[in-house]
Amino acid sequence: MRVAINCDLGEGFGRWDLGPDAELMELITAANIACGLHAGDPPRMSATVRLAAEKGVGIGAHPSYPDLQGFGRRYMDMPPEEVRDFVTYQVGALQAFARAHGAKVEHVKAHGALYNRAADDEATARAIVEGALQANPDLVIVVLAGSRFEEVARQMGARVASETFADRGYDARGRLLSRRLPGAIVHDPDVVAERVWTMVSEGRVQAVTGEWVPVKADTICVHGDSPGAVAMLRGLRQSLLDKGVELVTIGQMV
Amino acid sequence: MRVAINCDLGEGFGRWDLGPDAELMELITAANIACGLHAGDPPRMSATVRLAAEKGVGIGAHPSYPDLQGFGRRYMDMPPEEVRDFVTYQVGALQAFARAHGAKVEHVKAHGALYNRAADDEATARAIVEGALQANPDLVIVVLAGSRFEEVARQMGARVASETFADRGYDARGRLLSRRLPGAIVHDPDVVAERVWTMVSEGRVQAVTGEWVPVKADTICVHGDSPGAVAMLRGLRQSLLDKGVELVTIGQMV
Amino acid sequence: MRVAINCDLGEGFGRWDLGPDAELMELITAANIACGLHAGDPPRMSATVRLAAEKGVGIGAHPSYPDLQGFGRRYMDMPPEEVRDFVTYQVGALQAFARAHGAKVEHVKAHGALYNRAADDEATARAIVEGALQANPDLVIVVLAGSRFEEVARQMGARVASETFADRGYDARGRLLSRRLPGAIVHDPDVVAERVWTMVSEGRVQAVTGEWVPVKADTICVHGDSPGAVAMLRGLRQSLLDKGVELVTIGQMV
Amino acid sequence: MRVAINCDLGEGFGRWDLGPDAELMELITAANIACGLHAGDPPRMSATVRLAAEKGVGIGAHPSYPDLQGFGRRYMDMPPEEVRDFVTYQVGALQAFARAHGAKVEHVKAHGALYNRAADDEATARAIVEGALQANPDLVIVVLAGSRFEEVARQMGARVASETFADRGYDARGRLLSRRLPGAIVHDPDVVAERVWTMVSEGRVQAVTGEWVPVKADTICVHGDSPGAVAMLRGLRQSLLDKGVELVTIGQMV
Repeated sequence: MRVAINCDLGEGFGRWDLGPDAELMELITAANIACGLHAGDPPRMSATVRLAAEKGVGIGAHPSYPDLQGFGRRYMDMPPEEVRDFVTYQVGALQAFARAHGAKVEHVKAHGALYNRAADDEATARAIVEGALQANPDLVIVVLAGSRFEEVARQMGARVASETFADRGYDARGRLLSRRLPGAIVHDPDVVAERVWTMVSEGRVQAVTGEWVPVKADTICVHGDSPGAVAMLRGLRQSLLDKGVELVTIGQMV
Repeated sequence: MRVAINCDLGEGFGRWDLGPDAELMELITAANIACGLHAGDPPRMSATVRLAAEKGVGIGAHPSYPDLQGFGRRYMDMPPEEVRDFVTYQVGALQAFARAHGAKVEHVKAHGALYNRAADDEATARAIVEGALQANPDLVIVVLAGSRFEEVARQMGARVASETFADRGYDARGRLLSRRLPGAIVHDPDVVAERVWTMVSEGRVQAVTGEWVPVKADTICVHGDSPGAVAMLRGLRQSLLDKGVELVTIGQMV
Repeated sequence: MRVAINCDLGEGFGRWDLGPDAELMELITAANIACGLHAGDPPRMSATVRLAAEKGVGIGAHPSYPDLQGFGRRYMDMPPEEVRDFVTYQVGALQAFARAHGAKVEHVKAHGALYNRAADDEATARAIVEGALQANPDLVIVVLAGSRFEEVARQMGARVASETFADRGYDARGRLLSRRLPGAIVHDPDVVAERVWTMVSEGRVQAVTGEWVPVKADTICVHGDSPGAVAMLRGLRQSLLDKGVELVTIGQMV
Repeated sequence: MRVAINCDLGEGFGRWDLGPDAELMELITAANIACGLHAGDPPRMSATVRLAAEKGVGIGAHPSYPDLQGFGRRYMDMPPEEVRDFVTYQVGALQAFARAHGAKVEHVKAHGALYNRAADDEATARAIVEGALQANPDLVIVVLAGSRFEEVARQMGARVASETFADRGYDARGRLLSRRLPGAIVHDPDVVAERVWTMVSEGRVQAVTGEWVPVKADTICVHGDSPGAVAMLRGLRQSLLDKGVELVTIGQMV
């Protein structure tokens, strides 16, 4: 059994830092690195890529709508051709830093509102895939497991990694529960580790309403910016290793 | 005899266009394409790269200080490491659009205040070269002929194209005359064509004070945004062709 | 009979100009001046305000979603409290330039996607009104005649100017026809002048489907950036003056 | 004896926070509030102004060069007229939030590289003063005590508050020691309190080389973003109160 643990990194900007990047980099196998449009700037991108390369962590681009003040968290009504080109731009910039440090960008994971929109909107899903593959046809596209985005990306013939969330509640259709609902966030580290183990070993997750829903867990997303994030991640990682799960990069996974 | 004719293109942004790009693209052999930080945005970069590729025009990145409102024309006191990474970022973004259209970025020409600073400041010159070569060690660096920038870039072992200006006056040291001084701009198309011919065939230019100054003219810079620009460029191009000068891309030149 | 003729001005940015502002300023009575977030920058805002003050043109703020690359034309999913504060920010900045030139901001007209959203979305409409009145409770809010925005603004007790469009087709409900449909744009200057005269004198407009729809025309919007804009505006203005319509600022109108 | 204690606040942006604003606001009498161009955004400006108004802290604008990624810390070669208009823009935006919360902007303190440049460069000093007074001729301009900026602002007839630094070393000419030199930062809270007491009560400060230098201390600048900042500020504040110094806003001071 194998899985990639991915986390968003490099999400400061200029004077502002965000999250314990150095600690997280020791624990994950895939870094989604901000590319300047919701967070990240050239010196920070370079430093984050270098650190990932040193630690053997798989390097991924984390493109966003162009919205620094909103941190890429609000939907913007852009035509798909523009979304595509904004993705290409961001992936290309990160690729140059990967080359600078003797590494390669392996995967692309859309950020925030762009990722959320792609889950349900075919035009956006297609634009992200096209934008990434324009920059390099070998890139792996990270998609929400079970979403329209997953279907579209697979139909387009891209390499695809299906993603599940370590600490998020699911509904009976296999979609993430809105953060406003009870059960949306799983706080207990042991429960998180148990759920992830079930996702990886059995390919399913239990919805808040009790049903078991099939999920494809090529990669598990963890969040780095909540208070107990590092401790939870450390526990999750150790638990998976103890059970004999091999932790790999996203490029190695698919 | 051979020379590359280069021009800045793709310098609109969003709603705003600038310059007759389509007409210019028919007449030049090397396009310096804005990369988003002084002008240019992803859709525009993609369209400009595609047009250059279709016309066989050599594709160059035109990186700038991050200053959209100032169009990259004002000096910013950035540390050299930041300059380097901002150059890498912009070159990388353009490289992705080149790949998208089956082409390659051949050269890098710094824009505006960044180019001017590099002419005299070794740290800036070095940062630009490092930033470009991080993205691809084969890139040709465009430098002001006779400048400190030229020396630094050659010492660093980069492929270098020395640049002269078709319509600008020179002083006796071979530097461009400040735009505030009389003789700074050459307006007569015939005089422009004659001066360029002398630069290309004899490797020298006459200063406003009468002296002849040696210049290496691997590439001639023309400006596209003045009223008579297209006509002057058309005349210059025809005059060079009539004299048997081969017009090549910057990548073919050096 | 009285009416205000309003037009968007100051919509360049940095190196980029847009539209014949100086000519337009001679013909209109109310200027909606870009405030930096879709277009406009401080020197340009100052110059545009000064010109309006010199010509006796009423000064209005033209706030937008924060989206320079998209020129404020794409919807952004911002919470209403953020919309409110972004409006206050932009109005406040323009007020300072008005004071600098011994003038006052009279009205606020939301730009592009923000204006369009407010026509149908009560939360956005309310946020714009609150944001403007935070900066000055005497400001006149410009609203699409017959829209939800108009209702909300009037219920909130604001001074309100209802706006109609000189060169746009209407449907039978009194809404602007989508630009994609035939009849969306009226090109004939005589027809434009006739339609506006009917709006002003009879308070109604004929829909593309033939019905007559009541409209309150406190102010007529003209566009400055199409090829024949200045000529059409000159004709419209003269036609209104010939018929004895008094042309006033938006602050004088309501 | 009276003095104002000022501190930079509201210097986060979007997703990023910076500094313990709420704690600092309890201890200072004058807040320099970021206006969006080096930090700060509309919702944050509104919240910071409201908090200052509630606590009776004097509200000041903290305008900067337009450089979010560089946090306004790098010199930009802008013409003075542009500096002036960028200052007016930022002050105006903050004034609108002050009005929204029933308060007034009392003072203007330039940020970072803009402040540093003004200390020695008359054109920049003059541009800041003009930009502020355009927005409101009653505003107090905060200047480095003993600088060219102070001279210029006083000659221009503005209300001026001379500023000294609680935790910075001075040279024999009364200028701040470069942060790269030993003695540039005073770390001992007791020494800081003692130095400030001497500035306030005797109008002088001891240089690192031993000389006593006269300084006018209308207001003391404290920094909020270093680890022991709140504790040092609490000690300083108490020490001044114990000695009978009245703590006032900058508007009350001059």
